[in-house]
Amino acid sequence: MTSNRQFLLARRPVGAVQRSDFEFASTPLRALAEGEVLIQVSHVSLDPAMRGWMNASTESYMPPVALGEVMRAIAVGRVVESRNPGFAAGEHVSGLLGVQEYAIHNGAGLNKVDPALAPLPLFLGALGMPGLTAYFGLLDVGQPKEGDTVVVSGAAGAVGALVGQIARLKGARVVGIAGGADKVRYLVEELGFDAAIDYKSADVAAALRQHAPKGIDVFFDNVGGTILDAALANLAHGARVVICGAISQYNNTQAVAGPSNYLQLLVKRATMRGVMVADYYHRAPEAIMAMGAWIQACKLKTREHVVQGLDSFPETFAKLFSGANQGKLVLQVV
Amino acid sequence: MTSNRQFLLARRPVGAVQRSDFEFASTPLRALAEGEVLIQVSHVSLDPAMRGWMNASTESYMPPVALGEVMRAIAVGRVVESRNPGFAAGEHVSGLLGVQEYAIHNGAGLNKVDPALAPLPLFLGALGMPGLTAYFGLLDVGQPKEGDTVVVSGAAGAVGALVGQIARLKGARVVGIAGGADKVRYLVEELGFDAAIDYKSADVAAALRQHAPKGIDVFFDNVGGTILDAALANLAHGARVVICGAISQYNNTQAVAGPSNYLQLLVKRATMRGVMVADYYHRAPEAIMAMGAWIQACKLKTREHVVQGLDSFPETFAKLFSGANQGKLVLQVV
Repeated sequence: MTSNRQFLLARRPVGAVQRSDFEFASTPLRALAEGEVLIQVSHVSLDPAMRGWMNASTESYMPPVALGEVMRAIAVGRVVESRNPGFAAGEHVSGLLGVQEYAIHNGAGLNKVDPALAPLPLFLGALGMPGLTAYFGLLDVGQPKEGDTVVVSGAAGAVGALVGQIARLKGARVVGIAGGADKVRYLVEELGFDAAIDYKSADVAAALRQHAPKGIDVFFDNVGGTILDAALANLAHGARVVICGAISQYNNTQAVAGPSNYLQLLVKRATMRGVMVADYYHRAPEAIMAMGAWIQACKLKTREHVVQGLDSFPETFAKLFSGANQGKLVLQVV
Repeated sequence: MTSNRQFLLARRPVGAVQRSDFEFASTPLRALAEGEVLIQVSHVSLDPAMRGWMNASTESYMPPVALGEVMRAIAVGRVVESRNPGFAAGEHVSGLLGVQEYAIHNGAGLNKVDPALAPLPLFLGALGMPGLTAYFGLLDVGQPKEGDTVVVSGAAGAVGALVGQIARLKGARVVGIAGGADKVRYLVEELGFDAAIDYKSADVAAALRQHAPKGIDVFFDNVGGTILDAALANLAHGARVVICGAISQYNNTQAVAGPSNYLQLLVKRATMRGVMVADYYHRAPEAIMAMGAWIQACKLKTREHVVQGLDSFPETFAKLFSGANQGKLVLQVV
């Protein structure tokens, strides 16, 4: 009998996540029931949304992870045993497999992925949840028109880097906001952004006035806080503000800082709307075909930041909040 | 030669407006130039937006009132002399006539009003700017469907009382938020709101959970601050949040308190959009015909709070912010 190494949520984090918020347990693997599959997890996706799942909050789109439960995470893995006619041993799947070596799953919501088409981490990035978020959040909610100025925060992150490139492919002028000279250089020189702003060294509101002199038509926000306020102060008439996330606020021990400049929605006749990727799962093939074709044509670049070893989960997850990750953050388990 | 009593903006108010922020001047009336009309102002509209016009802010939809200039206000009056072929002496007009006894105007943006159709103050309320704001803000931006739960803040105010009644006429369940037992009673007993919440005595978030158990489909906000946050915490899936104003924030000496719960836009796939009445002036006849017909059929009730005497302008204006007004606040000049 194999044992399964798992990160269980031991207590609700206060502020930044600590190793002591988890128990790194070793649990014997039980036998499969009828309809279940056993999956060996190979890559765990580390996403900002996981921080919210650790809170006791009742007003969210998913129930919180219960104390003592395996930490929820999207991951890819290989089916090693199946009592479900829909899945065969050897197939690769993605889904909510959790931060653990092995997952026992009933198959609901599992997607098969083909490792011959792309490296497995890509199914956690551009061809996975962040890809769908970027594609539909930008095109469906943001609705950029050719010639529009699109600004994206968290621009070097898993979602942001895709948003900027898709916007460019659709004929927009793209300005990214990211932390540090390396990321700024990467956005402009590697990804072809028209401009990028280092929020760690620049006055973001002033830099936006400079780089978006006619105002921002679409602002895609992954960050919240002062960066959202700087963008709101620079909207164009009729702007669309896409709320995708607020990573600057997720570790708050006090209330989220709401956007002080929200009355610019009135002055600029602008719209602020949330995007929730789950609403677009039924349209996933459309996005994945488009993204896949762009990647094959070298029009869309992706970068995965793969960290080895399940045991580093708490410290690796923290990179999302310090901005230490370069691209889509993935934990490689095997 | 007649002298003209005028309120000139003497300095930019800090916090609540003081009498000393204005000079109550007496200025000789000059002769009309070709194309101008002389209007004797009869009723001045007192609107929350005027507080914003007093600030030096550069990021607004109108330039600020300059120091030394007549305080900007919508008003109605009677043409007493005309050198403009579009207007004849004796006609009544509404427009940006200012807080003064007489206005000299070139006619651009002036609208004729017929005092035989309705009492003059009504052209500053339901048949004027607040009426258009309520009608288009609710129907165009909020888009209530039959059976929706519509919540409006500042519900006993000029705009809010209309929003709630129009929403009822369109088949929605309507909950008002207002300050004090008198206003709450007025909303439910006089205007037919399904429920009303006294924000001065109730826990608004808890009361909204009670009165909107399936969540708020349309929130029409005139208030901002903690009331906006309470509404955001109670949105239904796909809700529309209409930002019309933020009277709780206009006298702030510090930054506007942004809505801490704005990430509910994401959780609830909701939209927050500003409404600016100027965008709808070209569609004014549609609203005024609808409102006029409802008023004649006794389906829409209006209440004007008319205060006598131009000289009380600063103290009367302050009623908007203390909530001491009962209905559309109007200063009667003659």
